[in-house]
Amino acid sequence: MHVLNDEAYMRLALQMAGSALGQTGINPVVGCVLVKEGRIVGMGAHLKRGHGHAEVLALQMAGEEARGSTAYVTLEPCSHFGKTPPCSDRLIEAGVIRVVVAGTDPNPQVAGSGIAKLRAHGLDVSVGLLAEEASEMNEAFNKYIVTRLPFVTMKTASTLDGRIASRTGDSKWITSPASRAFVHTLRHRHQGIMVGVDTVIADDPLLSARGDVPAVQPVRIVADSRLRVPLGARVLTEQDLQPTILLATAQAPAERRAALEARGITVLTCGDGPQVDLTLAMRQLGEREIGSILLEGGGRLNGAMLERRLLDKLVLMFAPKIIGGGQAAPGNISFEGFAKMDDAITLDRLKVEQFGPDVCITGYPVYKS
Amino acid sequence: MHVLNDEAYMRLALQMAGSALGQTGINPVVGCVLVKEGRIVGMGAHLKRGHGHAEVLALQMAGEEARGSTAYVTLEPCSHFGKTPPCSDRLIEAGVIRVVVAGTDPNPQVAGSGIAKLRAHGLDVSVGLLAEEASEMNEAFNKYIVTRLPFVTMKTASTLDGRIASRTGDSKWITSPASRAFVHTLRHRHQGIMVGVDTVIADDPLLSARGDVPAVQPVRIVADSRLRVPLGARVLTEQDLQPTILLATAQAPAERRAALEARGITVLTCGDGPQVDLTLAMRQLGEREIGSILLEGGGRLNGAMLERRLLDKLVLMFAPKIIGGGQAAPGNISFEGFAKMDDAITLDRLKVEQFGPDVCITGYPVYKS
Repeated sequence: MHVLNDEAYMRLALQMAGSALGQTGINPVVGCVLVKEGRIVGMGAHLKRGHGHAEVLALQMAGEEARGSTAYVTLEPCSHFGKTPPCSDRLIEAGVIRVVVAGTDPNPQVAGSGIAKLRAHGLDVSVGLLAEEASEMNEAFNKYIVTRLPFVTMKTASTLDGRIASRTGDSKWITSPASRAFVHTLRHRHQGIMVGVDTVIADDPLLSARGDVPAVQPVRIVADSRLRVPLGARVLTEQDLQPTILLATAQAPAERRAALEARGITVLTCGDGPQVDLTLAMRQLGEREIGSILLEGGGRLNGAMLERRLLDKLVLMFAPKIIGGGQAAPGNISFEGFAKMDDAITLDRLKVEQFGPDVCITGYPVYKS
Repeated sequence: MHVLNDEAYMRLALQMAGSALGQTGINPVVGCVLVKEGRIVGMGAHLKRGHGHAEVLALQMAGEEARGSTAYVTLEPCSHFGKTPPCSDRLIEAGVIRVVVAGTDPNPQVAGSGIAKLRAHGLDVSVGLLAEEASEMNEAFNKYIVTRLPFVTMKTASTLDGRIASRTGDSKWITSPASRAFVHTLRHRHQGIMVGVDTVIADDPLLSARGDVPAVQPVRIVADSRLRVPLGARVLTEQDLQPTILLATAQAPAERRAALEARGITVLTCGDGPQVDLTLAMRQLGEREIGSILLEGGGRLNGAMLERRLLDKLVLMFAPKIIGGGQAAPGNISFEGFAKMDDAITLDRLKVEQFGPDVCITGYPVYKS
């Protein structure tokens, strides 16, 4: 903090909120800071679904000092009874006199009504400070609360010639330890992690979030139309992690499905075609309250998801390497694509970062109508 | 300039030198600043092969004020009679008392002897200030002066899925105007620009340096084993630009060669195989005093040059787009490649820049022994 002002307090609230990303499930992350007469009197962040909201926790810390204070909240205080009573009521009762809000809540149950209620009770409310940062932090929530579909982030790691493995299939490792540490953080921040069955057959991955410290484990999701997953695969045998969900179709052998279900594996039927209906799969995962998915597929699954416009965010990591291999070396995204360069899917709000020697390009796909 | 010190004067000299990149042919770019009693008394830069050296031009500007001054020179002053008399002698005669040199001259005819001569005459000489910047600026010269082989920079422009065209071959445009302006500057800074004949057949490019202001035009080089270039191609018919050199083999039809030579086109015979011997081609281009080449090939020519370790620098531009197209859409670099990811060619001294929305990754390939 360089200068003591509204922005500095809001940045603190955002920092607290962002730190809880990955541990609130389908709930948004929210931070709240209470300030009175030049001193911070309370702080709170929503840490777990069903537990206290940021404002309530901050009010608890402030106690009597909340009266006459200003509340900095990263998301519009709720006005409805959900798993907890409405926060706007709590702020009013506690005697807060001014509320600075970063962004309004896209939740159709809130959507401005929290702010309206505060104003109706005479509180001074301003909205929009650092709204963009606050909104990006909850980009998964913002999609899920309106569509009930998971927000899908695709992550690829490739060479500078766009390959995710050599012509013999070797892919260990393309990117640096610094990049891989970031990927494990992404796993922590998403509720599900998704791959295709060919990745499971080839690499037998654990699909867990691993770092220097313990992480929240994502649900493991495998697109496996005909249930070809080996029964000894670690995604099935490692039970200490989150459950595994297999996405199959009605064409998968019934006895195979029965054997998997007998072992406690969830098998979702996504259409009756030869391939998983990915749109239907996302809808079913959304119904199961999986609000965010990190897709770490091979080129074809990545391409199929992109083609169906199911990807919301792309994280493309490039290691400073050239592997060659021509068409035998798989690419990061594979689909029929477009005849005209002008029709290409473009990425919006581009961010370029470096992790160790690797370059990480993040953006949001713009699907042309 | 924030602080008046040796570095500030050397940065000025480097700025002057670097601005002349592309106009000195196989000669290095050099800048010189003369400072006396707190005032700049002379400035000079080598602007054209056979014309004045930086030190001489700066001494001319300084006149009598050179006596007792300090010279900041980006490259060791020469000690041999080339196209001009040795600069070290001129500095001594003019009465310069201190010389600050960025880097020594790799030219085997100089290589420390210029500095030795200055010191032998009692001048205070220090070497190494901003040496890395100075050396990088003359990276093409540094290679050519020692090996007589051109320094080759490969430039590609691809989508984030590594494609340089759509599945139908459409490639106009992948990158933004800002990136293309940078590419034209790269063309200005290289003595030659090289493509394969398939690019000429497909796109009929002019292969010129075009910008908001006039540029130095590169020699146009086309790898064309069997001389398939159409006689109406713009690289042959546009005579206002630099000459065109075709790289062919002994298998090219004699009458075709004769017809081209009759039109003033240079045809180099690079081996007698079905494909151009690229190593031999580089040697022949070096003999013709082409000391730097910008390779803007298709995937196969790029891959062949990389495989033969003829690339010195890679400039890989990525537009924030996904085009798809599977194997029908050509990749940026295509060659047999390596079985193991650990054997991949890595890039050293990585630089990541953005031109408009595009990401430009520059590096130097490390070829494993």
